[in-house]
Amino acid sequence: MSDPNKIFSEKLRAIRKGKDFSQDKLAELTKIDRSYIGRIDRGEVNITLEMLFKIAVALECDPGEMLPSLKQILH
Amino acid sequence: MSDPNKIFSEKLRAIRKGKDFSQDKLAELTKIDRSYIGRIDRGEVNITLEMLFKIAVALECDPGEMLPSLKQILH
Repeated sequence: MSDPNKIFSEKLRAIRKGKDFSQDKLAELTKIDRSYIGRIDRGEVNITLEMLFKIAVALECDPGEMLPSLKQILH
Repeated sequence: MSDPNKIFSEKLRAIRKGKDFSQDKLAELTKIDRSYIGRIDRGEVNITLEMLFKIAVALECDPGEMLPSLKQILH
């Protein structure tokens, strides 16, 4: 099995950079601690759904867009 | 704003029941405590992504299928 949390952080980074969002800007908009945003970005922490929803609102994307598919998890 | 966690639990329940999965069966397959599964089912707890991935694997669905869209969150 792959590491789904790593896939999540890769997708998050791709969306964040695609929208030209710095980690600082994301931290500011989500009111999540800046260093914690860095750890999320690197896939080092296991965040909660509520935090995922905050990030989705800030990045203006569906929460599901940041998640691996079942196939990716099982691969 | 709606309660995205409630939308998540409603979607989870719909998928679980649609696949004829009892809470017991879900608890057994995910190795998540049976009473905690009940609380997740009722939207009473803020689960982590890793728990979401476990549930998705057990229910054989994409994790994103259980989540609200951005539109639903902002509604």
